[in-house]
Amino acid sequence: MAEIGPNTRLRVSPFYESTIAEGVAAFSPYNGMLLPVSFGDPQAEYHRLMSGVSQWDVGVQRQVQIQGPDAARLAQILSVRNLSSCKVNQGKYVPMCDHRGTLINDPVVLKLAEDLYWFSIADNNMLLWSRSIAAERGLDVHISEPDVSPMAVQGPKAEDVVASVFGDWIRDLKFFWFGDAIIEGIPLKIARSGYSKQGGFELYLMDGQRGKELWNIIKEAGRPWEIGPGNPNPAERIESGLLSYGGDTDDTTNPFEVRLHPYVDLDLEDDVIGVQALREIRQRGAKRHQLGIVLNGSEPRNGHAIWYDVYAGDQKAGVMTNGVWSPRMKRNIGFVLVSRSLSPGETVDVLINGIRQPGTLCELPFF
Amino acid sequence: MAEIGPNTRLRVSPFYESTIAEGVAAFSPYNGMLLPVSFGDPQAEYHRLMSGVSQWDVGVQRQVQIQGPDAARLAQILSVRNLSSCKVNQGKYVPMCDHRGTLINDPVVLKLAEDLYWFSIADNNMLLWSRSIAAERGLDVHISEPDVSPMAVQGPKAEDVVASVFGDWIRDLKFFWFGDAIIEGIPLKIARSGYSKQGGFELYLMDGQRGKELWNIIKEAGRPWEIGPGNPNPAERIESGLLSYGGDTDDTTNPFEVRLHPYVDLDLEDDVIGVQALREIRQRGAKRHQLGIVLNGSEPRNGHAIWYDVYAGDQKAGVMTNGVWSPRMKRNIGFVLVSRSLSPGETVDVLINGIRQPGTLCELPFF
Repeated sequence: MAEIGPNTRLRVSPFYESTIAEGVAAFSPYNGMLLPVSFGDPQAEYHRLMSGVSQWDVGVQRQVQIQGPDAARLAQILSVRNLSSCKVNQGKYVPMCDHRGTLINDPVVLKLAEDLYWFSIADNNMLLWSRSIAAERGLDVHISEPDVSPMAVQGPKAEDVVASVFGDWIRDLKFFWFGDAIIEGIPLKIARSGYSKQGGFELYLMDGQRGKELWNIIKEAGRPWEIGPGNPNPAERIESGLLSYGGDTDDTTNPFEVRLHPYVDLDLEDDVIGVQALREIRQRGAKRHQLGIVLNGSEPRNGHAIWYDVYAGDQKAGVMTNGVWSPRMKRNIGFVLVSRSLSPGETVDVLINGIRQPGTLCELPFF
Repeated sequence: MAEIGPNTRLRVSPFYESTIAEGVAAFSPYNGMLLPVSFGDPQAEYHRLMSGVSQWDVGVQRQVQIQGPDAARLAQILSVRNLSSCKVNQGKYVPMCDHRGTLINDPVVLKLAEDLYWFSIADNNMLLWSRSIAAERGLDVHISEPDVSPMAVQGPKAEDVVASVFGDWIRDLKFFWFGDAIIEGIPLKIARSGYSKQGGFELYLMDGQRGKELWNIIKEAGRPWEIGPGNPNPAERIESGLLSYGGDTDDTTNPFEVRLHPYVDLDLEDDVIGVQALREIRQRGAKRHQLGIVLNGSEPRNGHAIWYDVYAGDQKAGVMTNGVWSPRMKRNIGFVLVSRSLSPGETVDVLINGIRQPGTLCELPFF
């Protein structure tokens, strides 16, 4: 396999050196930066997340900061979920759509003040998008990417580790809520959030010069719980049914196709981007839907790097967007994006390297 | 160094398998795909480009296709260069700016018909940007990313190779002009263009299933001229003074700072994005400018992966955005983006890994 390292078009995370020291084995580009995607021991990394605690460099989750008199208005214009009930210090998981109703991101939106929001984004240039909309509509906001880089602490022991450093107040944080903290002079926000279903926190480092220090503080504090390095875990996230924007979506995917309907409010004002298109899509019905698939056989398969075509008989019915060996199910599982004519329980064939692999569709999540 | 390979958020170029077979050693992410950046023998790759012919997978240069009754109008709205004289089958190098006058891309714009344009883009999501502007302004266009992937053939022997396959008509192509071609049923457009100053062509493959075939056709045809694999060459492009959008620019860089003033028309209509801001910037004067730098000493330095701070005496005066060993000058050279108070001929210090390296500023290009 070919190599990758930082270059002048790839910014370095404040935790980059720490992940190198921890033995990062592979990266994936994400928001113009490098996201660690393996530390070389998948079994240990999965086990750590499921039963212990794991420390992740997710500095690639950049913040689009919207500040000013029109900040709340713009935040809503960019979000197809109603944000009116969002309180200061609360976050919400929000689909963002373009004017066609196509999903262009699924950030957590953090409300820091009545006139200050962060969109903690997945892999797409929402800074450019937000600036475009603000300028075209003449809104009074300042949009920037602040020096803020999240580190995730995930797993059932994450709360003990984070509480041991920052105090027991973090135990009272509700899901997606956040608060301010400071440790050894390092400014942070701490949110109960993260890209796993095993529980945990994201520490929003607010000084990029101090990533190594923060990494080591958490690493030291986590020793009693055998903390170790990790990253958004392919097996756990697929078992848990978590969407990967860009990995499981394409240039025409709308939120209804990928199980995001609970986060779409069709009675928002018409000026919210995508809402008018989504009403039409809702009325005529989405053509595809995302389901799980369990492939036949109980031998672990190799990595899944491209989308595979899915066939119902001789008809191409969609694609399998990801796949992984599930330690909990002892089966190869994944997500498919297929025609609405297919339902859970039906069998399909997945064309993998020219060979049809049969499998059975199911509801998501697996767990 | 860590590894990288395709994943489900990284699309694969039609030439990917061919570059793997040619021994690609390193990739850089670019427009959600992988750009080969080394085949492991920098000296041979440089020599091939300078005195022979080199074959590049630049499929990452995606096309933003704008089609419809308002296509010409939108193309101009997105471009701070006057496109009114652009003929069908002609391309132009065009700075794109946001509303702040900040550079967001520097594509070659290809006019395929009066109502059909391709923006052959550098590394930023101009599909999203273009759709945003078109929708906000209610323009009657269809914007898409067609199945089009360029392969570059570069170097002084490129014309002979391309003519041997497609005929002598390509010898008459003027710079940035293009024409239609077909070889063994593979549809293409051929432009005289490419990211080097050594001359050559870009073959716009219009069927992604046939990348391997096209690669092999050019490879076979090029044997008499000892064609070999390559990629946008760091040494040649820096010697030649070619800008790398995103590599040499930041979130506030305007076209005047990076020598693009010949491509900016300030008397365009006010609806052209960025023109009003650029008029103001022109009036008060840009604060920075891009110059060359020649570092003292004649020992080749290692790779340049991050921006280095530049000091004039004790004052931080800007950054060195790239650097490379120049085979032609036998010196370490690079680009700086520094205060306008500094001029060619002056000496500065570059802070590299904590050590001040003295160097002399100069005009660009070096050659």
